[in-house]
Amino acid sequence: MDKGRILLAVTAFHPQHWHELLSADRTVVSEPDGPTDPSITYAVVWKQRPNLLSRLPNLRAIFSIGAGVDHIFADRTIPDVPIVKIVADNLTQHMTEYVVWRVLDHHRQGSLLRAQQNKKTWRDPPQRPANDISVGIMGLGTLGKAAATALLSLGFHVNGWSRREKTLAGVSTFAGEAELIPFLNATDILVVLLPLTPATTGVINYGLLKELRRRNGLGGAVLINAGRGRLQKDADIVRTLDDGTLKEASLDVFEVEPLPRTSPLWNHPKVFVTPHAAATSDPNHLVPIMLKQMDAFERGEPLQNVVDREAGY
Amino acid sequence: MDKGRILLAVTAFHPQHWHELLSADRTVVSEPDGPTDPSITYAVVWKQRPNLLSRLPNLRAIFSIGAGVDHIFADRTIPDVPIVKIVADNLTQHMTEYVVWRVLDHHRQGSLLRAQQNKKTWRDPPQRPANDISVGIMGLGTLGKAAATALLSLGFHVNGWSRREKTLAGVSTFAGEAELIPFLNATDILVVLLPLTPATTGVINYGLLKELRRRNGLGGAVLINAGRGRLQKDADIVRTLDDGTLKEASLDVFEVEPLPRTSPLWNHPKVFVTPHAAATSDPNHLVPIMLKQMDAFERGEPLQNVVDREAGY
Repeated sequence: MDKGRILLAVTAFHPQHWHELLSADRTVVSEPDGPTDPSITYAVVWKQRPNLLSRLPNLRAIFSIGAGVDHIFADRTIPDVPIVKIVADNLTQHMTEYVVWRVLDHHRQGSLLRAQQNKKTWRDPPQRPANDISVGIMGLGTLGKAAATALLSLGFHVNGWSRREKTLAGVSTFAGEAELIPFLNATDILVVLLPLTPATTGVINYGLLKELRRRNGLGGAVLINAGRGRLQKDADIVRTLDDGTLKEASLDVFEVEPLPRTSPLWNHPKVFVTPHAAATSDPNHLVPIMLKQMDAFERGEPLQNVVDREAGY
Repeated sequence: MDKGRILLAVTAFHPQHWHELLSADRTVVSEPDGPTDPSITYAVVWKQRPNLLSRLPNLRAIFSIGAGVDHIFADRTIPDVPIVKIVADNLTQHMTEYVVWRVLDHHRQGSLLRAQQNKKTWRDPPQRPANDISVGIMGLGTLGKAAATALLSLGFHVNGWSRREKTLAGVSTFAGEAELIPFLNATDILVVLLPLTPATTGVINYGLLKELRRRNGLGGAVLINAGRGRLQKDADIVRTLDDGTLKEASLDVFEVEPLPRTSPLWNHPKVFVTPHAAATSDPNHLVPIMLKQMDAFERGEPLQNVVDREAGY
């Protein structure tokens, strides 16, 4: 079997480096030769233009750039071929770094200490040990599990919530709608790593945040969202920060990206904003994984990390 | 044997809580009844007044509050009895949190991202993965080993340097004067957890810092000192920050503490200052460990974590 041709269908960033790396092994085009181009075997996509893939007769699989696949489903016309999520040690490692960094910066009172430094104040604030703090992770896929393991090894107590029941050594796991409130009630620092689906859109809202545990001496709960922006209601986060429910938040993602200059999150004193940079997809690491999957598929092996279309992730 | 009486000899902070907790099990005094008070069996000390302990005829052991013991040796008249360092999971965990937090904040470009947020700049800076960065730890005692293990699990390459040869799984270890330069030449982020002794005083100076690796794209090496302030030359750190040798520094300790308001470190844009707060000795955790050691000693068991007086730690 010949090596299948790749359609690289990307909007929102310039995929030149992806194009070069994929081209080393296969023919890559940026546009099909018409809506029914029979030469396209694979699509490698990030926020592809709607309808671009719907009528390609020989398309055999779609590969997502990035861990989430919600950007693919935004196009309701995608054909019924397997969609492959990228799972890469590199991406997982970056996300774990980000989560541990943000948990520690809140836990170790980075904002307070930076403010003290600005005023030349030498004062050692009371500091709880990690094993007195519960970090709750929503979403126990590859990224959530890796973050949980790293936080456990630093001594934190870790709770995990997922749609379907999962078990993970050392983690107190909760599942489904029925166990969401108990999970939140036992969580001091909430880390969001959920996939974005119709069921999870807007789930990080005022009502949910009000259920987080608020203990004496901690000054409110903490929110860290490194999943997808549309999981959250930006305005509800501002409201919970302002009414004291939340002490602080680290947000890597937002309802609209880039975050509009008019957003109150930009200069909210209790918010740390990063530009969807927690775990950037690096083509140097990801392209070889994609090419290897295509080769294996053409030898008759099954695709790895195929999306469950009903669940949406 | 009766329970030995404790002299709690503390300057520089108010030891009321220590006094209460120790008193639950033993008689505690804050002053001996004269320089030859025969009733004192143990001294629990932090920067004790010089000469206070030298002539106590029945003193059997000295217990240090805090992981370092340099504050004890500042008094040249201390008698020849065992000096016990405090080793506590709690203290080790706190230090590991601090080291991992500071390494990640430098690695993940916290300063740059905070500055970008202030300007409402949405820009994803190039970010290397942890396994492309070498963290070098000077001092492989209990604290250094624990920090090394945590950094390894996050994917960093870890180098370790110690006076005497040590081995630690996964860590590239270097030992003694002869291997100091090779250790520094292979290190991007230097973490200092050395004990303060005559041999280590002032060791973190201009010449040493110039030997750190400086790679393209990293913008200079990084220094994190969570050991003791007198290990470093404050002025040399400012010099290496200003000449570009160092990109940034996190300093928890200083030549003079509290850090004088006139120090240029306070508002240096490349320095993060914390008030000797990396791992604060918590009497709730440490007193039970001390009391248990005293009980065991009185049953005839050997003391744990006794200082090597010749090495000074």
